[in-house]
Amino acid sequence: MKKIPRYFQIARWIREKIDKGEWVIGSKIPTQREIAEQFGVNRSTVVTAIEMVKSEGLLEGKTGSGIYVVNNQWSLISAISPPDWNDFTKWSLQPASEHTVQMINELENRKDLIQFSKGELGPEMFPHAEITEAMGKVTLQLQEFGYGDGLGELGLRTEISRHLQRIGVNIAPESILIVSGALHALKLITTGILKRGSTVFLESPSYLHSINLFPAEMAIREIPVAEEGLNIKELFQQKFTKNSSILFLNPTFQNPTSTSMTLEQRKILLDKCQYYQLPIIEDDIFRDLWLDAPPPAPLKALDKNGQVLYVGSFSKTIAAGLRIGWLAGPEAVVKRLSDVRMQTDYGSSYLSQVLVKELLASGMYEKHLQKVRCRLREKRDELLRLLSLHLSDVATWSTPSGGFFIWVVFKKKMNMQKLFKQCLAENVVINPGFIYNDRHSTLRLSFAYATFEEMEAGILTIKSSLSNQI
Amino acid sequence: MKKIPRYFQIARWIREKIDKGEWVIGSKIPTQREIAEQFGVNRSTVVTAIEMVKSEGLLEGKTGSGIYVVNNQWSLISAISPPDWNDFTKWSLQPASEHTVQMINELENRKDLIQFSKGELGPEMFPHAEITEAMGKVTLQLQEFGYGDGLGELGLRTEISRHLQRIGVNIAPESILIVSGALHALKLITTGILKRGSTVFLESPSYLHSINLFPAEMAIREIPVAEEGLNIKELFQQKFTKNSSILFLNPTFQNPTSTSMTLEQRKILLDKCQYYQLPIIEDDIFRDLWLDAPPPAPLKALDKNGQVLYVGSFSKTIAAGLRIGWLAGPEAVVKRLSDVRMQTDYGSSYLSQVLVKELLASGMYEKHLQKVRCRLREKRDELLRLLSLHLSDVATWSTPSGGFFIWVVFKKKMNMQKLFKQCLAENVVINPGFIYNDRHSTLRLSFAYATFEEMEAGILTIKSSLSNQI
Repeated sequence: MKKIPRYFQIARWIREKIDKGEWVIGSKIPTQREIAEQFGVNRSTVVTAIEMVKSEGLLEGKTGSGIYVVNNQWSLISAISPPDWNDFTKWSLQPASEHTVQMINELENRKDLIQFSKGELGPEMFPHAEITEAMGKVTLQLQEFGYGDGLGELGLRTEISRHLQRIGVNIAPESILIVSGALHALKLITTGILKRGSTVFLESPSYLHSINLFPAEMAIREIPVAEEGLNIKELFQQKFTKNSSILFLNPTFQNPTSTSMTLEQRKILLDKCQYYQLPIIEDDIFRDLWLDAPPPAPLKALDKNGQVLYVGSFSKTIAAGLRIGWLAGPEAVVKRLSDVRMQTDYGSSYLSQVLVKELLASGMYEKHLQKVRCRLREKRDELLRLLSLHLSDVATWSTPSGGFFIWVVFKKKMNMQKLFKQCLAENVVINPGFIYNDRHSTLRLSFAYATFEEMEAGILTIKSSLSNQI
Repeated sequence: MKKIPRYFQIARWIREKIDKGEWVIGSKIPTQREIAEQFGVNRSTVVTAIEMVKSEGLLEGKTGSGIYVVNNQWSLISAISPPDWNDFTKWSLQPASEHTVQMINELENRKDLIQFSKGELGPEMFPHAEITEAMGKVTLQLQEFGYGDGLGELGLRTEISRHLQRIGVNIAPESILIVSGALHALKLITTGILKRGSTVFLESPSYLHSINLFPAEMAIREIPVAEEGLNIKELFQQKFTKNSSILFLNPTFQNPTSTSMTLEQRKILLDKCQYYQLPIIEDDIFRDLWLDAPPPAPLKALDKNGQVLYVGSFSKTIAAGLRIGWLAGPEAVVKRLSDVRMQTDYGSSYLSQVLVKELLASGMYEKHLQKVRCRLREKRDELLRLLSLHLSDVATWSTPSGGFFIWVVFKKKMNMQKLFKQCLAENVVINPGFIYNDRHSTLRLSFAYATFEEMEAGILTIKSSLSNQI
């Protein structure tokens, strides 16, 4: 092998990729830089290799847009449809954000960056001891498991029912559906309940604008969020079509603004929604992460008429990789969504389900939450301190009383796209408000993931990037 | 509590269900018999309770179709759409089967029935020791885990890549997507690749007819399956629309017929599909469960042009509750489906993924398979013996060389709906061929789940039920 030149080895690797059908016609091959990094060679070596494969007719370069596979008459892609990513990933209403969101999703997996973006607990809050102990217990009690019932493991549903009881929500286990995270619950609702042509009322800004949740046939109406959460007055100036309007709401530590509705506002909203027959999807995934005092009761706790579908998750509080969340509501609706669910993936992992059950039943979840709250409070306070120190001239923010995020509003209009790129060039990932359909110059900064040192370096980077714009 | 009469307690329970919004307007309450069983009372007590709640205006009876909730002006269901289950669960093309499939799905969870239906390994084949050992190792090595990358855990993808290598499929880990079972992979393909208005070619009979996989906009064309699998000649008499036709195929131990295509037939099919640019979804979930000799190579092993998307799973070989399967194919298609997937549930359970990785890497999976094959062979042979002894006058069948099922063909036309019901009355669950869109009098009998004693009792029940029809 030693005597074969590197460019020759790389050319062979490219040919194999095409030959095995892994790189199909019409697809773009990795950039010269990426290949050079992978093989640990100079770009010139990669250029030689690519020229060699080009001369065989397998590749073709398009100026300014990379090298494409062009051989191979019967490729799969040509038989179905070309992978037009721009058409496919209709991320949001604002074209500018599409690319940014995709980019952020990929950047969040990189360990070498300062993550103000990541909506996850930092590694220091991972409940290693608790999970190890629970895994041990689960393993000892392990019984054979196959396809479960449609709603999910009964023991877990019973524990979630008890957990909800503590926050005033009375829901029997048979009205709870275990899902693979909150996004999965929301997706089931959009595909399983909403009709084509439905009108969806959404907060603005909202993290839901940054994900591809609603089919194009649904009309999205944005309702602004202010200090006290959703602007109820503006919501009820809208027209509702009976049986085809629905409200998606994240009333507690809203993502991205971190605002919460007061109890009073919740009552008014629920009353009005009942009057107008507007059903509510209550997304309450940050509730357990209050930092100063427990938040007001969920809408679901006030709901006597089955007006609210309630969605929760353990992704933010334990670990996203468990893929365990829930959906609770009227038995008939839950049953219906369970059927939809069984037609797509036959349920959530049994192991994840019994692990979470054990964490809840043993009280380890509650103890873990107490530790997490302490640590998150420290991290929030540190980020607030850094913001005051370095950015108080140019921006304002509120102190979030729970969740992961500080919502930074710049006093003057800034070029947020440019700020995003400049920070990234310095290895800092920030989420500009426009990906949540915010029209102002805003930033969502997560204090959950980065270390104190990273926070300081990150804020200084934002500051120096801004200095170009002021 | 003792002095409160039972009917009063039941009435209170009903009121609570309605009050909490668990039973919403328009929904049917459980039958009198079900409620009586739940409370351990006579039906007359339930009737009294229901009359009481009816008199309060909360319930109303419709003759012949049960008791419905009628109160409660602002229920969720009235605001969205009434739970019309018949409209919602469009299980198959044959109206008769809808109800039967739903019924079978529910019956499969009951432990008191003889299960000729269940497509799962019996509890005696559950790899208890192997999973316990692997769980121990996984727990020791556990690192913090969050949202994973879009394709799934790299270690697992690497092990699957090695596993596929052994059956002649060369696929790099970056061309493998981890999914939550084979159905999930098929669902991703139908939603992520197929256009509305696509034509889908399916085997007939096929288990895919019994699940609600394809949106109504897609045209389904059925191609018959015979001794040597798919009727290739008939397939290529069809018209194909370029870029919007696709073939779904289960060429090895096909469900429900258990037939396998020969290597020769596979080559011919692949050549022709390449010529006509017809892409293939190869569903190969039973491959590892060969009983007599390893089956012919998968189409994917013969595919040099990225014509085939290859789907596999550990649901049939280890345990369905893991929810781990894979999809392998051209890198661009896999990437695309990974994006679709990340927009619905953010990946599969990390715990399930690392557990399966450990089972594969340690060689425990392969050892487990050897034990499973021995046991399945015994069970197949026993069911064949019982069939020969009791049903050879009225039916024929072939010896399956792998998988779970014996496909029984009756010599004369039988009323299969009636047979299904009569067997069920005797606590035996069978799958009549019509749920797979088979027009003949056929049965799919699983030998994987029932014990020897249950098999004997079950076959005798089928025999005696048939005697009414002969």
